[in-house]
Amino acid sequence: MSWELTRNDLPALAIGAAILGTGGGGDPYIGRVMAESAMASQKSITVLSVDDLSDDQWVIPVAGMGAPTVLFEKPPRGTEPLQAFQRLRDYLGASDALPCPIEAGGINSMVPLQVAALLKCPVVDADGMGRAFPELYMQTFHLNGISGTPACLASEWGETVLLESLRDNYTFEWIARGVTIRLGGHSFVAQFPMQGAAVKRAAIRGTLSLGIRLGRAVLEAARSHQDPLAALAKASDYAGYGEGIIAFRGKIVAVTRRTTDGFARGEVVLEGLGDQRGTTARIAFQNENLVFYRDGEAVAMVPDLITVVDSQTGQAVTTERLQYGQRVGVLVIPAPAVMKSDAALKVWGPSAFGYSISYREPLTAMS
Amino acid sequence: MSWELTRNDLPALAIGAAILGTGGGGDPYIGRVMAESAMASQKSITVLSVDDLSDDQWVIPVAGMGAPTVLFEKPPRGTEPLQAFQRLRDYLGASDALPCPIEAGGINSMVPLQVAALLKCPVVDADGMGRAFPELYMQTFHLNGISGTPACLASEWGETVLLESLRDNYTFEWIARGVTIRLGGHSFVAQFPMQGAAVKRAAIRGTLSLGIRLGRAVLEAARSHQDPLAALAKASDYAGYGEGIIAFRGKIVAVTRRTTDGFARGEVVLEGLGDQRGTTARIAFQNENLVFYRDGEAVAMVPDLITVVDSQTGQAVTTERLQYGQRVGVLVIPAPAVMKSDAALKVWGPSAFGYSISYREPLTAMS
Repeated sequence: MSWELTRNDLPALAIGAAILGTGGGGDPYIGRVMAESAMASQKSITVLSVDDLSDDQWVIPVAGMGAPTVLFEKPPRGTEPLQAFQRLRDYLGASDALPCPIEAGGINSMVPLQVAALLKCPVVDADGMGRAFPELYMQTFHLNGISGTPACLASEWGETVLLESLRDNYTFEWIARGVTIRLGGHSFVAQFPMQGAAVKRAAIRGTLSLGIRLGRAVLEAARSHQDPLAALAKASDYAGYGEGIIAFRGKIVAVTRRTTDGFARGEVVLEGLGDQRGTTARIAFQNENLVFYRDGEAVAMVPDLITVVDSQTGQAVTTERLQYGQRVGVLVIPAPAVMKSDAALKVWGPSAFGYSISYREPLTAMS
Repeated sequence: MSWELTRNDLPALAIGAAILGTGGGGDPYIGRVMAESAMASQKSITVLSVDDLSDDQWVIPVAGMGAPTVLFEKPPRGTEPLQAFQRLRDYLGASDALPCPIEAGGINSMVPLQVAALLKCPVVDADGMGRAFPELYMQTFHLNGISGTPACLASEWGETVLLESLRDNYTFEWIARGVTIRLGGHSFVAQFPMQGAAVKRAAIRGTLSLGIRLGRAVLEAARSHQDPLAALAKASDYAGYGEGIIAFRGKIVAVTRRTTDGFARGEVVLEGLGDQRGTTARIAFQNENLVFYRDGEAVAMVPDLITVVDSQTGQAVTTERLQYGQRVGVLVIPAPAVMKSDAALKVWGPSAFGYSISYREPLTAMS
């Protein structure tokens, strides 16, 4: 079923997509401004569900890539996503191709909306991660044997680089990351071009809808002076995701973060407040939050969604915005079962990020 | 005037081109085998002088790029130059484009011959460096305002990356180098596509002819038991190049070399023999030989050609083959005046490589 996304939906989507971004996926403020600006002259964008696609409909996922820290110093020009999308579309001769997110996130859920608004075409309600992940091969499209190339990278200088064919999707990530680093640490990428039949087989469905649902829960909680974390935990039980777990409440006491190899890597340390007083927690991240430890024990990990949420506003705190003294909660949203198959865990489970821990379901209760 | 280059010319060209490669430009043995293999089924290739080109004739320079040390471990597959050339040709819609060297060197003078042989088309007797230089913007094409992009990189895996448009030629080098590093340290590149009018304005002419001339001098000296260095010094007085200077005779006593940032960088130390006994010399290199010091004094430097030559055989010793104990001479060939303009020295004079010395003409006599 298709539906209309209006400018009024953007604040909720920005909030909810950033929750799904699990610390990455870009700053929701920048993302919202990008989409609002592109939608200034039109009322709505048609959102197609995956089932609405014909089997031969071309779909091109498009997103920002690089270290989110870099965007603080180098904001996008705004034309990059459209340029990357159009170049790849023209390269394929797929003049009717539709944009789609590659991941959920404050910027990366908005990028395809910006493209759709500028081209006055529908957007597809799906993505390849069901959250945000740091590397380009961490997509269900890859798990389903689809090639990331041909792909097009665009910079804020109007530069384009076409990765025509590369040996595999790991090499695609490696080369695209290298180009992105040398373009200044951030770029926009159109990649994994595919047709409707492949989208139906491979995509995580409904993540734009879920983003709006989560954002509305936060806004409604704010209006009614309810706990936003509790509202989020309840709202996440949708489209295969589990009910959220409030895994921690406390304040940030330390952040270590370095921008290296094209990623923002580091760790945030939290001390408990309220009934968590005396408990210490930490989260390791690479653009996105990867593993959540409570008193030294890994209690939640990729691919389950670990998001640091501002205690008062319910807004996601992305990894580049973590800072000393913030009062936060840690929300864990169980990922859909399809993201936890053995094949999927090999690509984005904890061992894929170098952790010598086996994946396990998140603990449901705070100790 | 066009002329026919036959398989019989390849041994001389390999030797002479490696002399012009000034330590870089690739190993002449690999280069010769590549060209001989491509010419196996045909007698000759037509070599066009720049004046033979019509003003709208497309020309695409094509070469190997990366650290020459890497080719020891990762020899080319052989199809890369043709693939890079054809992709860029097709991208431009220039179906009649002709190949041309980007620089002189044991491999890089041969690469366009290989392409010409496989396509049964002529090759252009010119290049963009008049020698070999390590970086892609160090070309007369760049000095004449021609864009390095669009360009196509090809790997031994059959991979292609199109650098469609980049902000300038320094960025072109930066991105192409980054991709080459991540493709394993070596790739082949078709770049600076241009038409005949631009070639006439910008190219260094006659370097294939000069390569053969130098190589024949070495072979003839060997046959007649003459000093190959003296024969080379005499033969280099051609097409604007000066008569060569035998700047040193001695043996290699130390080599420091590291493959870093996509280049082979280092230094070779020499001790004098014969009437040079008691003299010490050293050459600093980045793929190519950059500065020649005799007893601590810089007596020859880029862009003049500094080549380490085997004392017995007259063959160039490329920087990746320098080793302890070799008996060598150091040949300095004064570059054409056009390569020493103020604008040219800014791009490839000693200061462009980080040396705080001003360019000066090579000293003509040994101390």
